Amino acid sequence: MGSGSDMSIGALRRAYGTGRLRPRDLVQRALARLQDPDQEAVWISTAPPERILAEADALEARRGDIDSLPLYGALFSVKDNIDVAGFDTTAACPGYAYRAKADATVVARARAAGAICLGKTNMDQFATGLVGTRSPYGIPKNPFNPAAIPGGSSSGAGVSVSTGMVSFAFGTDTGGSGRIPASYNGIWGLKPAPGDWSRAGLVYACRSFDTPSVFAPALEDVCAVDQVVRGSDPSDGYSLSIPRGPARAPRIAAPCQIESFGDAGVAALYDALRAGLPGADDLDLDQFRSLNDLMFFGPFLAERDASVGAFISANPEACDPTVRNLVLSSRKFTAAQAYEAQYAVADCRAALAPFWQNYDVLLTPTVGAIVTRDMVAQDPLGPNFNNGYYTNFANPLGLAAISVPIARAPCGTPWGVTLYSLPERMETLIQGAAQISALAAA
Amino acid sequence: MGSGSDMSIGALRRAYGTGRLRPRDLVQRALARLQDPDQEAVWISTAPPERILAEADALEARRGDIDSLPLYGALFSVKDNIDVAGFDTTAACPGYAYRAKADATVVARARAAGAICLGKTNMDQFATGLVGTRSPYGIPKNPFNPAAIPGGSSSGAGVSVSTGMVSFAFGTDTGGSGRIPASYNGIWGLKPAPGDWSRAGLVYACRSFDTPSVFAPALEDVCAVDQVVRGSDPSDGYSLSIPRGPARAPRIAAPCQIESFGDAGVAALYDALRAGLPGADDLDLDQFRSLNDLMFFGPFLAERDASVGAFISANPEACDPTVRNLVLSSRKFTAAQAYEAQYAVADCRAALAPFWQNYDVLLTPTVGAIVTRDMVAQDPLGPNFNNGYYTNFANPLGLAAISVPIARAPCGTPWGVTLYSLPERMETLIQGAAQISALAAA
Repeated sequence: MGSGSDMSIGALRRAYGTGRLRPRDLVQRALARLQDPDQEAVWISTAPPERILAEADALEARRGDIDSLPLYGALFSVKDNIDVAGFDTTAACPGYAYRAKADATVVARARAAGAICLGKTNMDQFATGLVGTRSPYGIPKNPFNPAAIPGGSSSGAGVSVSTGMVSFAFGTDTGGSGRIPASYNGIWGLKPAPGDWSRAGLVYACRSFDTPSVFAPALEDVCAVDQVVRGSDPSDGYSLSIPRGPARAPRIAAPCQIESFGDAGVAALYDALRAGLPGADDLDLDQFRSLNDLMFFGPFLAERDASVGAFISANPEACDPTVRNLVLSSRKFTAAQAYEAQYAVADCRAALAPFWQNYDVLLTPTVGAIVTRDMVAQDPLGPNFNNGYYTNFANPLGLAAISVPIARAPCGTPWGVTLYSLPERMETLIQGAAQISALAAA
Repeated sequence: MGSGSDMSIGALRRAYGTGRLRPRDLVQRALARLQDPDQEAVWISTAPPERILAEADALEARRGDIDSLPLYGALFSVKDNIDVAGFDTTAACPGYAYRAKADATVVARARAAGAICLGKTNMDQFATGLVGTRSPYGIPKNPFNPAAIPGGSSSGAGVSVSTGMVSFAFGTDTGGSGRIPASYNGIWGLKPAPGDWSRAGLVYACRSFDTPSVFAPALEDVCAVDQVVRGSDPSDGYSLSIPRGPARAPRIAAPCQIESFGDAGVAALYDALRAGLPGADDLDLDQFRSLNDLMFFGPFLAERDASVGAFISANPEACDPTVRNLVLSSRKFTAAQAYEAQYAVADCRAALAPFWQNYDVLLTPTVGAIVTRDMVAQDPLGPNFNNGYYTNFANPLGLAAISVPIARAPCGTPWGVTLYSLPERMETLIQGAAQISALAAA
């Protein structure tokens, strides 16, 4: 299970500040644990020990600057569809690998703030999946329940945090990949609105609404990373400058009943949480969910073709069959259908304007049911779609979202809820997430 | 040539205010002129006399409210791809016609401000053309040079203004249709940034970057209409709320040499104007123009298919062959290619950010050459593309633009230049347009 709390950015900073801990100590501890059984299939590549130790020592020499380095000495992992200079980027497809010449913008900003990259994490290939099982590098173990999936596509990212190896992990989120592993690993997962964090240096899934994301053991940690990496980037054509209003007491809407796909344990967890939210209004999720089928059945899939389709066509045997078939299935869609899908998104956003006049935060389960490895082995598609039931719509609608760890399901697997807001209400979203977390802990 | 200046909104308001003129007088004068030779092929439908006279009388009864009705008693025309309640909307295809149940938002706002709709104007079918010749309703005559085209696609709109029939005309602009007829008719054409004016009630060409536009004899008139119709609309999924900064002295960039397609007369007009702009910097237009081929050769065409393709497929004989073939040619494009075209737009916008840090206004010819009816008859595509050389990129790039009448070419046809700006610099754009107009008149 690791020692997640020791790795919080704030605790590390205090230890560094007093000299009780040096960055080298933390790095050595992490390097020593890389061969532990709980790290199996978590990492696709890790930093050469001599290089990362030198990085730690260079940071130690700058200890006097700690006040200007908000992520000083924090170890982090990077999902392997995000470039880190000098590492291969594989997107969990060895044949696709290329050596990254530069850090992705979010990585560069984290490093400039004093964070140290331990390595690149496993994922569903080409970020096409929500399960964590679609990788030739194996399936990271869920540290709480060996029968459960780790969640995906940012599977290794989630487990690198839940096993206490790093203070935070960069993932990516297109259809839910930055939230679902948070739920399955009992940690926090923050996914800003698309455009709020730079996409420069990512292997795109759906370039028009992908976003980097972050996992961490505590809310303060995801917020600390957000503060460092957010903001527009001229090298990302889809980058936005999103103003953030002040936090206010969130007006919350949450469905009274959820789709739990027969998982009574999760339904009971949700019902208990929902009962503690007397101020929250019920809502009909159909308007939000009207976009879901576009993600893995509709023209949105063709963005994955635009990103990696040429490689898949040329190297079909190099790819996971489920991923390959999904991406290639998009070739039946015409340009006109792609535009029609975008009109559906625009019309859905407009139709939801009254909702966002009445509410600051939408609350749903992150996943409606705990998915096991066996379920995916028997049906590679169905449980994956179920995992996306509550997550697919967020990015097309331009929403920010945060998955909050709530409790363990009867099977032992952690489970969380996701809060969503308009981009400019991110501070209110964070306040709402803190409230829900406190409610769950009470 | 008509009496354009008499029709200016300001002159009419003064005449109404003193009681020298009543709305009924203006309407009767216009009705009496509808059969004049210069109105041939300008109108697809006009208001029933009894109805429009009753409208004029109702307005007369509200003369005391003139201060709160900024377009009081101004006659206007509406391009026939924009809904006016009770009129058929044909988009210049009789077989496509439907009876509009409600006014388009821009029409409703103009009427609520006291303007009176005289009728619906001719256009290139489905707004697919920049010439004004692609209509079963005939070709509106260019009132200055019978050999010249009227410009398109808003052909009737331009001529309805240049012949003095109306104070302003609503057109639409996707690839240049709100600017090119302004140049050919010696009038002003304002095309706001896509999203600044509502698209609700339009027959879309490319829904993601269409915009309504306005033609008028004077800058004050297009500004008066802009003030009334601008602003977000919840019934348009692509509507934006665009803040407008204050006007400031514009920093202008303008190419030192233009592509005039062998038209020495236009080249000389531009050279003379450019010589009077010593403060303007030269620029390379290639970055802007890199998007042009997407408009009529690339996936952007598929938006037209999404809008009217089903009708064209079911009724091929009902359509102009050039228009039909262009729209249907888009079916070769895949959804992935549509996304790639959008990435090209996003990357081009990002690459132009430094340009817009240095400049407020880009100035180009509206058209590089005067196109004649004969040229289009001999080659329906080439002269059309030439007309779009300087116009196609504006809407994909999200720019506001205004075509300023400058002078007559040696053939007698009017010719103008277009100024472009970022959406939020519209007030500076207008100030720049006034300066250029004064310069040309000096």
